[in-house]
Amino acid sequence: MDIGTLLGIVACFGLIVTAVLLGGSLGAFIDIPSICIVVGGTVAVTFVMYPMGTVFGSFKVMMKAFFAKTPKPLELITKIVELAEIARKESLVALEKADVPDPFLKKGVLLAADGTEEHLVRSVMETEISFMKQRHRQGQGIFKSMGTMAPAFGMIGTLVGLVNMLQNLDDPSSIGPAMAVALLTTFYGAVLANVVFLPIATKLGERSAEDTLYMEIAVEGVISILNGENPRIVNDKLEAYLAPVLRENTNG
Amino acid sequence: MDIGTLLGIVACFGLIVTAVLLGGSLGAFIDIPSICIVVGGTVAVTFVMYPMGTVFGSFKVMMKAFFAKTPKPLELITKIVELAEIARKESLVALEKADVPDPFLKKGVLLAADGTEEHLVRSVMETEISFMKQRHRQGQGIFKSMGTMAPAFGMIGTLVGLVNMLQNLDDPSSIGPAMAVALLTTFYGAVLANVVFLPIATKLGERSAEDTLYMEIAVEGVISILNGENPRIVNDKLEAYLAPVLRENTNG
Amino acid sequence: MDIGTLLGIVACFGLIVTAVLLGGSLGAFIDIPSICIVVGGTVAVTFVMYPMGTVFGSFKVMMKAFFAKTPKPLELITKIVELAEIARKESLVALEKADVPDPFLKKGVLLAADGTEEHLVRSVMETEISFMKQRHRQGQGIFKSMGTMAPAFGMIGTLVGLVNMLQNLDDPSSIGPAMAVALLTTFYGAVLANVVFLPIATKLGERSAEDTLYMEIAVEGVISILNGENPRIVNDKLEAYLAPVLRENTNG
Amino acid sequence: MDIGTLLGIVACFGLIVTAVLLGGSLGAFIDIPSICIVVGGTVAVTFVMYPMGTVFGSFKVMMKAFFAKTPKPLELITKIVELAEIARKESLVALEKADVPDPFLKKGVLLAADGTEEHLVRSVMETEISFMKQRHRQGQGIFKSMGTMAPAFGMIGTLVGLVNMLQNLDDPSSIGPAMAVALLTTFYGAVLANVVFLPIATKLGERSAEDTLYMEIAVEGVISILNGENPRIVNDKLEAYLAPVLRENTNG
Amino acid sequence: MDIGTLLGIVACFGLIVTAVLLGGSLGAFIDIPSICIVVGGTVAVTFVMYPMGTVFGSFKVMMKAFFAKTPKPLELITKIVELAEIARKESLVALEKADVPDPFLKKGVLLAADGTEEHLVRSVMETEISFMKQRHRQGQGIFKSMGTMAPAFGMIGTLVGLVNMLQNLDDPSSIGPAMAVALLTTFYGAVLANVVFLPIATKLGERSAEDTLYMEIAVEGVISILNGENPRIVNDKLEAYLAPVLRENTNG
Repeated sequence: MDIGTLLGIVACFGLIVTAVLLGGSLGAFIDIPSICIVVGGTVAVTFVMYPMGTVFGSFKVMMKAFFAKTPKPLELITKIVELAEIARKESLVALEKADVPDPFLKKGVLLAADGTEEHLVRSVMETEISFMKQRHRQGQGIFKSMGTMAPAFGMIGTLVGLVNMLQNLDDPSSIGPAMAVALLTTFYGAVLANVVFLPIATKLGERSAEDTLYMEIAVEGVISILNGENPRIVNDKLEAYLAPVLRENTNG
Repeated sequence: MDIGTLLGIVACFGLIVTAVLLGGSLGAFIDIPSICIVVGGTVAVTFVMYPMGTVFGSFKVMMKAFFAKTPKPLELITKIVELAEIARKESLVALEKADVPDPFLKKGVLLAADGTEEHLVRSVMETEISFMKQRHRQGQGIFKSMGTMAPAFGMIGTLVGLVNMLQNLDDPSSIGPAMAVALLTTFYGAVLANVVFLPIATKLGERSAEDTLYMEIAVEGVISILNGENPRIVNDKLEAYLAPVLRENTNG
Repeated sequence: MDIGTLLGIVACFGLIVTAVLLGGSLGAFIDIPSICIVVGGTVAVTFVMYPMGTVFGSFKVMMKAFFAKTPKPLELITKIVELAEIARKESLVALEKADVPDPFLKKGVLLAADGTEEHLVRSVMETEISFMKQRHRQGQGIFKSMGTMAPAFGMIGTLVGLVNMLQNLDDPSSIGPAMAVALLTTFYGAVLANVVFLPIATKLGERSAEDTLYMEIAVEGVISILNGENPRIVNDKLEAYLAPVLRENTNG
Repeated sequence: MDIGTLLGIVACFGLIVTAVLLGGSLGAFIDIPSICIVVGGTVAVTFVMYPMGTVFGSFKVMMKAFFAKTPKPLELITKIVELAEIARKESLVALEKADVPDPFLKKGVLLAADGTEEHLVRSVMETEISFMKQRHRQGQGIFKSMGTMAPAFGMIGTLVGLVNMLQNLDDPSSIGPAMAVALLTTFYGAVLANVVFLPIATKLGERSAEDTLYMEIAVEGVISILNGENPRIVNDKLEAYLAPVLRENTNG
Repeated sequence: MDIGTLLGIVACFGLIVTAVLLGGSLGAFIDIPSICIVVGGTVAVTFVMYPMGTVFGSFKVMMKAFFAKTPKPLELITKIVELAEIARKESLVALEKADVPDPFLKKGVLLAADGTEEHLVRSVMETEISFMKQRHRQGQGIFKSMGTMAPAFGMIGTLVGLVNMLQNLDDPSSIGPAMAVALLTTFYGAVLANVVFLPIATKLGERSAEDTLYMEIAVEGVISILNGENPRIVNDKLEAYLAPVLRENTNG
């Protein structure tokens, strides 16, 4: 679970609420119609932008930003080296019975054990990676779009408020509060976009990059196993994919 | 039909109208000259930006965002596996008489049945995909351009209103309403761009991606049929193109 | 001639003038010094941005947005199929005497008739396409740059007006008109950029895409002729480059 | 020398000064602390963004926008055709003594005369082009960055001025001038960015494109000479790199 | 150490503080709650955007902008030429004992000495370069994101201040100072983004480009050594990677 996503959002809201309370009351910042136009408009326009299935699927995608387990490339490399040793000592076929918890690596190892040719194994596995990336990019796209639309509806709401206010300037004492309410939609749009939608889109992109790196290591590993490479060399080769910090840990 | 596009736009307008009514009357938000400059200007400038034929064609393209049927890649895969079985049991030539409802797949299957070489089949089919994508990108481009131009004409209209207002500041009571009217074009531009033009451009892009994926599966399927691959393997290979959710459905 | 470019610009100016007249007089919107700083500044800065020859050449390029004839790919395909028939019935050499009105196709056909190798024909023709695209991109670039610079000079002009106005606030009655004049440069910049420069840049890009498609069809056609392909297949192959609408016309 | 760069900048400043004088005095637009924060801040932040050597080198790069000689591709082609004739009539070795004023062409010709293989000649020459482009892009990058930072420091300066002004609203008569001074930094930032930094970045990009085209012609020419191609064909081939206008001149 | 980064930031803050003091007191620009919402919000949202490990790692990455040693490609080339001489005079195996201080070059030289094939040496070394670039891009990405989020939280803070102020317009004398405080968060956001985060992101990008160039020279050098190329030619080839200025130094 990625505790940072939740803590970060909570901390941001905490800071904003504190700022509000230092200069006034929270009540002045809660206006149901304003919330409706910004949240409702952003959600409604998302259905104009994306196919229904994709929109409903995005809630599941969003969970990835909160709960996804960080892939552990080091454990993967250890497992691959282990499999390479089996392949060298016994045979490729022996891999069929090996215990491989990761389903993507398992798929590749089974293909290798079946005697599939290198270019085919690579093509099957890379197709899977490329379509995973495409789906992730789509999930990320929805949150980016919501991050663009929330401030747009904030501005539309503020314009509605301003036009209504300007039509009724007779009572000067009402101008201030009316303008305050008009600004609330801009405020909601800015908070939603910059605290929720855009950061989650960035996190999803980072998660996708981590998954991709993990799967690319698996592909290279399966190819190396298929070619009967020396387990020690396999280890060196795959560690080139990791940052030096991570690498030192394995050597230690 | 993509009910989300229509419902989404209706919901957005509903929310905006409600917001207007909560703080004033709808009449104050309808100003015919302001509508003319924003809508008329956006349409007129579209003819400066795109060839006439393309602009008129864009209404047809827009329908795609409202009424296009979602392509069903699973049905396509089932059909391709069926054809692969025919090709294996009987022969490639037997495919000529097979019932293939999808015209793009049909074209590829006929090419295969004619004994056309793999690289040629691929080239003909991929040329069609690449030009379809290009035409879609152009259709999408028009709506993106309109989504940029509507706020621009909104701003031009507001500047006209402001300059006119500033020239006649003698009657203070008229300043408010004059400024309200000046802001209306900005409001129209923001609504048109963010509720209609830009979301439709996004939806068209999503539809194009779906069509492209569907057609890419068809290409890979035809090539696999041509190479006489095992129908079971063809099924596995093509399902790699789908999200795991969709895939589970077939296995179930 | 592309009547849409001219009509579109005229319609936009008509709408803006009407909007002005509905709320005031046209005289209040014409200020010679303001026009000088926006138009003059935009032109002057274009000479800082682009080599002189390129700037002077851009007027000629602009004409393309108004007067360019739409290339007719269907006529081109008909001509290519005709040439393919000659090449099949008679010989490649017979093409030398064929009547080919289009100079680019002519160049390719002559190369083919000379017995030039396929890869060389392709390389010579594609070099020409790629440099044409580059020159078009440069012409488009100038108008895009002017479309960015016009609002920038509009803002600079408004800042000059505001600073001057703020230094002399003694006479309250002059504030309104002074501010109105200050806003005029922003207005000019917005109109020039969004009605003239940016739309023309887009149109030039569309024209370039049409020319490129036309020339790519010519390249494929010449290669097919060179390879002695069946005229019917040549026709099918080249039509894959066209939108279905255009294609139906030929079949009809 | 590129007189357009200097004249353009002078003309822009002339127009702005005239606009200032028409509505007030130049003195009101000169504020030393405001100039310090915009110019000083932009220069200082450039040292944060780029390595010191690169920043100092950028003054030399800037000179390129003012004084660079336009490369003359036609003269280059004439020279290459001349060399191709020598290579055909005499031998490749004879090129060693040929008079080649351009150092880049000279380098390539010497490589060819030494009997270096085609792919090696191409690789050496293209490495040089690609690194020249990279260095140009870096030089351009500094001016683009300064063009982004100047308005940012203009805004920071205006915020400082506004906050100071808002703290002291007791004397209404001082509000106008204080606000005018606050706006000056925004004005300076806009002028510096749009009249100096961004246009020079664009000009450097154009110059780089011209140099690249020139050098690409040299590469193609040297390869053609190496392959002993017919000088007339070499001429035709290289002219495909030029715009039709330039080409006509040679034919005339 | 890159003294420019530190000096540049110090100079920017110095200029801003001077500008503040010329028009008011520093005290008016320090507001703890405003600092909390901008700095705290930016940091908190960074944890929403990036995995925790990456965020903590970014402080170490930031140090690179202040303290990284500039790689010296000329020394590298001298070392490579020296190794090429050893390889020619003695043998590739003799390189194993050569003194190579740079760890990346050392790795490549050892691979070469081991008799590894060219394409494998290149692949191992380029994998390392490509993943280093990816890690650098991620580090740079965090600072870019913070540079976007700081002004966003500045705006959110200003909106909170404005809404609070507009609710309490009874005491006109408090409006000015309240608005001043509201603007402070915008000011903090602009300063943080443009003086700290965005410039550091740019510097990290420049550092990454320098490291990449250095490592690319090492790769080309090792390949040349492996192919037993003439040390003089190796020198010429590798110098093509450097700017002419740097090159002249070696020739002098």
